[in-house]
Amino acid sequence: MNYMLKDENAIYFECGYSCDNALYLSLRNEAFFITDSRYTIDATQHVRKAQVVINGDLYAQAAQILKNAKVKKVIFDPKEWSVAGFDRIRSQVECTFEPEMDFSHKKRIIKNDEELKLLSRAAKLGAKAFTALAAAFNAEGLGESEYRLTYKAKSILSDFGSYDLSFDPIVAINKNAAKPHATPTSKKLSWGDLLLVDAGLKYKRYCSDRTRTVFAQEGFGFGTKQTFSKQKIQKAYDTVLKAHDNAIAKARSGMKAKEVDALTRDVITKAGFGEYYVHSTGHGVGLDIHEMPYISTKSDTIIEDGMVFTIEPGIYIPNAFGIRIEDMVAMVEGKAVVL
Amino acid sequence: MNYMLKDENAIYFECGYSCDNALYLSLRNEAFFITDSRYTIDATQHVRKAQVVINGDLYAQAAQILKNAKVKKVIFDPKEWSVAGFDRIRSQVECTFEPEMDFSHKKRIIKNDEELKLLSRAAKLGAKAFTALAAAFNAEGLGESEYRLTYKAKSILSDFGSYDLSFDPIVAINKNAAKPHATPTSKKLSWGDLLLVDAGLKYKRYCSDRTRTVFAQEGFGFGTKQTFSKQKIQKAYDTVLKAHDNAIAKARSGMKAKEVDALTRDVITKAGFGEYYVHSTGHGVGLDIHEMPYISTKSDTIIEDGMVFTIEPGIYIPNAFGIRIEDMVAMVEGKAVVL
Repeated sequence: MNYMLKDENAIYFECGYSCDNALYLSLRNEAFFITDSRYTIDATQHVRKAQVVINGDLYAQAAQILKNAKVKKVIFDPKEWSVAGFDRIRSQVECTFEPEMDFSHKKRIIKNDEELKLLSRAAKLGAKAFTALAAAFNAEGLGESEYRLTYKAKSILSDFGSYDLSFDPIVAINKNAAKPHATPTSKKLSWGDLLLVDAGLKYKRYCSDRTRTVFAQEGFGFGTKQTFSKQKIQKAYDTVLKAHDNAIAKARSGMKAKEVDALTRDVITKAGFGEYYVHSTGHGVGLDIHEMPYISTKSDTIIEDGMVFTIEPGIYIPNAFGIRIEDMVAMVEGKAVVL
Repeated sequence: MNYMLKDENAIYFECGYSCDNALYLSLRNEAFFITDSRYTIDATQHVRKAQVVINGDLYAQAAQILKNAKVKKVIFDPKEWSVAGFDRIRSQVECTFEPEMDFSHKKRIIKNDEELKLLSRAAKLGAKAFTALAAAFNAEGLGESEYRLTYKAKSILSDFGSYDLSFDPIVAINKNAAKPHATPTSKKLSWGDLLLVDAGLKYKRYCSDRTRTVFAQEGFGFGTKQTFSKQKIQKAYDTVLKAHDNAIAKARSGMKAKEVDALTRDVITKAGFGEYYVHSTGHGVGLDIHEMPYISTKSDTIIEDGMVFTIEPGIYIPNAFGIRIEDMVAMVEGKAVVL
């Protein structure tokens, strides 16, 4: 099997190194990491199990290698390639280019022991950051806008620049939390507000992802035990927590992903909030923040040991409030273990 | 002329709004902004001169519109489109898809008065941030790693989260500055070091870009007047500054871009550093941090009033030091005006 990769994380997975201008070819008996001269030193030091080739024109170089090797068929993921880059190669090489969607993500769906360790470490650092964030918000969050609170979250999650973030954190107050992908506003935090924080960091390129929704008051923490002043919010919160706990307790290897999704959805539907649960239960996490498996109502993917994904049910009442509770789990010996 | 756009900034330029999941079609008499339901409210409020169409499947929706309008030819930039996305449309519509590289960048090469104002404001905010950064580095930079200094630069450039950044800032000490695209290391700042900072922010989506290289000592500032302790560094510094000033003084509308490039390159070559000037003189700046015109040895682009680009000559001595001085200029009434 021959394949060519353009995505940075897909390439990193193959050879333990990547950069923002690279192309990777895996042929029957050899592999090539192609990059430009800015990365000669780093690539030569870190690329494993592939020959480093330096050429400012990645595409011409890749075409040359494919021609020299007389390759007849090469697999590529059409999501990874721009029309311009792909056409540069295709126009120079006579062979079959076989599109396979999510080619690298499929290879990465089961994590090996080393990856599980890195993901576990990322999740633990992410959890620790939430503790530090609670302290910071208690000390100096009151009266600050979502913009500033988001900035504080970035500072603390990144340990002031030491870690990359998995994504821009979401810090949303009251009705802003009703948008699953909320972006910050000038809304300021008052005690008595509902506060949702969704954030993660990268440890050695592997992502963490975590969401907590809390009743913001003096001394609050990001634990899952929360008491809201409004009964309607409390009912929704308790429902989301029950759905979250139910899925973690009952997810099993061998289930279909949609059966895991049902473990959260049934709880929420039964409580009467079904129409306000507007997304899937979760997604795989690895080098990318969104990977396989997708824990959705439609997915027939069989859950297996070594898969890592989020459990993140939510209830979103437009113009009122939103609640989401998210943890990462790994499937170990048939069961879900929170990372 | 019909065209279709996928790039976020290309779309913003057409209609004054964009988001991370949008597709834009401009047909003879009408234009369409297609996005998913997460953006209904924002798109409806902000999109100008185009019909907002909500559909989770952007590509199917675009194909449908092209079919209904019986479009015969549509222009697209093959750099903007993934093979997967483009094929979704092409497979459903019988018309000629005409590739035109840099289609949107070509449209945006001359800035209008409103854009010039925004770029000028961005540059001024960027310059102000450098002043604040000097104060911060003087107060608490000594002994800090490039990681931490980069984080401080991000904090100050973004005004603690209020502005997006044009790119991840470069903060490089001594020999690390010899890499034009240096990434931070654990190297710590001492007084007496050479310090290079390349950073920019976005004001209403328009980018700033600025580089200063300084002799770091108590009370230092990011002005262009710098005195280094080592004569070799001083000679290189004075050469770069002379090249920078020469290009700003002598650039004229009507010149070819390569003639502007020669205004920096000739000074550096004459001083004996030619082989250490490893990049072009500059690049256009606008919604994207790298736009047309490219001020390179090979570019025959005619410089015109309304173009905005950087002048950023440099000298890079491997394993020793690197120097770069960069400002943004706009061509106004035939001459270069520093923004």
